[in-house]
Amino acid sequence: MSELFRKHLEKFVTIDDETFHEILKYFNTKQVAKKENLLQEGQVCKHHYFVVHGLLRKFFINEKGTEQTTEFAIETWWLTDNIAYEHKQTTSCYIQAVEKTQVLYIDQESQEKLLAAFPVMERYFRFIYQRAYAAAQLRVHYLFSLSKEEFYLNLAHKHPEFVQRVPQYLIASFLGFTPEYLSEIRKKSVS
Amino acid sequence: MSELFRKHLEKFVTIDDETFHEILKYFNTKQVAKKENLLQEGQVCKHHYFVVHGLLRKFFINEKGTEQTTEFAIETWWLTDNIAYEHKQTTSCYIQAVEKTQVLYIDQESQEKLLAAFPVMERYFRFIYQRAYAAAQLRVHYLFSLSKEEFYLNLAHKHPEFVQRVPQYLIASFLGFTPEYLSEIRKKSVS
Repeated sequence: MSELFRKHLEKFVTIDDETFHEILKYFNTKQVAKKENLLQEGQVCKHHYFVVHGLLRKFFINEKGTEQTTEFAIETWWLTDNIAYEHKQTTSCYIQAVEKTQVLYIDQESQEKLLAAFPVMERYFRFIYQRAYAAAQLRVHYLFSLSKEEFYLNLAHKHPEFVQRVPQYLIASFLGFTPEYLSEIRKKSVS
Repeated sequence: MSELFRKHLEKFVTIDDETFHEILKYFNTKQVAKKENLLQEGQVCKHHYFVVHGLLRKFFINEKGTEQTTEFAIETWWLTDNIAYEHKQTTSCYIQAVEKTQVLYIDQESQEKLLAAFPVMERYFRFIYQRAYAAAQLRVHYLFSLSKEEFYLNLAHKHPEFVQRVPQYLIASFLGFTPEYLSEIRKKSVS
């Protein structure tokens, strides 16, 4: 498990055995059952999660009372409600395991200490936030430029393994579709 | 001009005179006239811009041929097309000065060298990207949860100086309104 994290770190920075061993002390691990919540609306958002194995999603309950999924995280992705995490505030989001999931997690104070103690981790998280920001920027661009159908086809084309793995009703929730409408689009795109 | 940049850096990190002097060598400055483009669709996105004075916006031309504004940047904000900048690709965006604007800018290779030479700048940019990501995440949340009218009222409430400063037709473009519809909402919210 820690091997996957180390491999991921080494995509961005170089770390020797001893340093990695020290870094790992700042983290805890957790197994989450399918549909178990790591975070719920109204709680203080204490943790930043790194997916070692499995799949998480983030959602909120909209005014119609339905779940609006805004993000997914698969292996090696980080997930939290970033504003609430940074300011130790209550969240309006849920983070839930879509499959049985194993995570590494850290709290905000430990993360600050980790970055202060290991400049190499400043570099690592600079890359992580830089890429997450670029992806979120692209997402906003798509929300304005693509129809929901185009957005789905783009997703299916770029991340086929993702569309295979995530249950259809959650893909629909992410795209703002009804499951029935998504099913129609899938039929159309196959034929 | 460099004083504003230094003050901004020192909100996040501590820097002595000599280090700041060295850091500044990685940047260039530019004056941009109102409505002048710093970046145009089809160009390679070479620069990352820091607004010293003035106001920039980023937009793309949608399939109806109209400008869709996706971001603004006022004093001390950074702006670029981040994916295109990181990978030195052509952009589908424009970056344009809304007012006469003064920027500091850096290219991608210089930014990498700067970060490698000055770990303190890794820390600075980690904060910058972290906050930009959190803001983009909130933006996506709002795009799903607020009506366009609520989004405008939220903006006007949280950033009144911004709504005052940016011409109405650009606020409308940012929100995906027609200028006429925005004008109606403004009348309603004042009355």
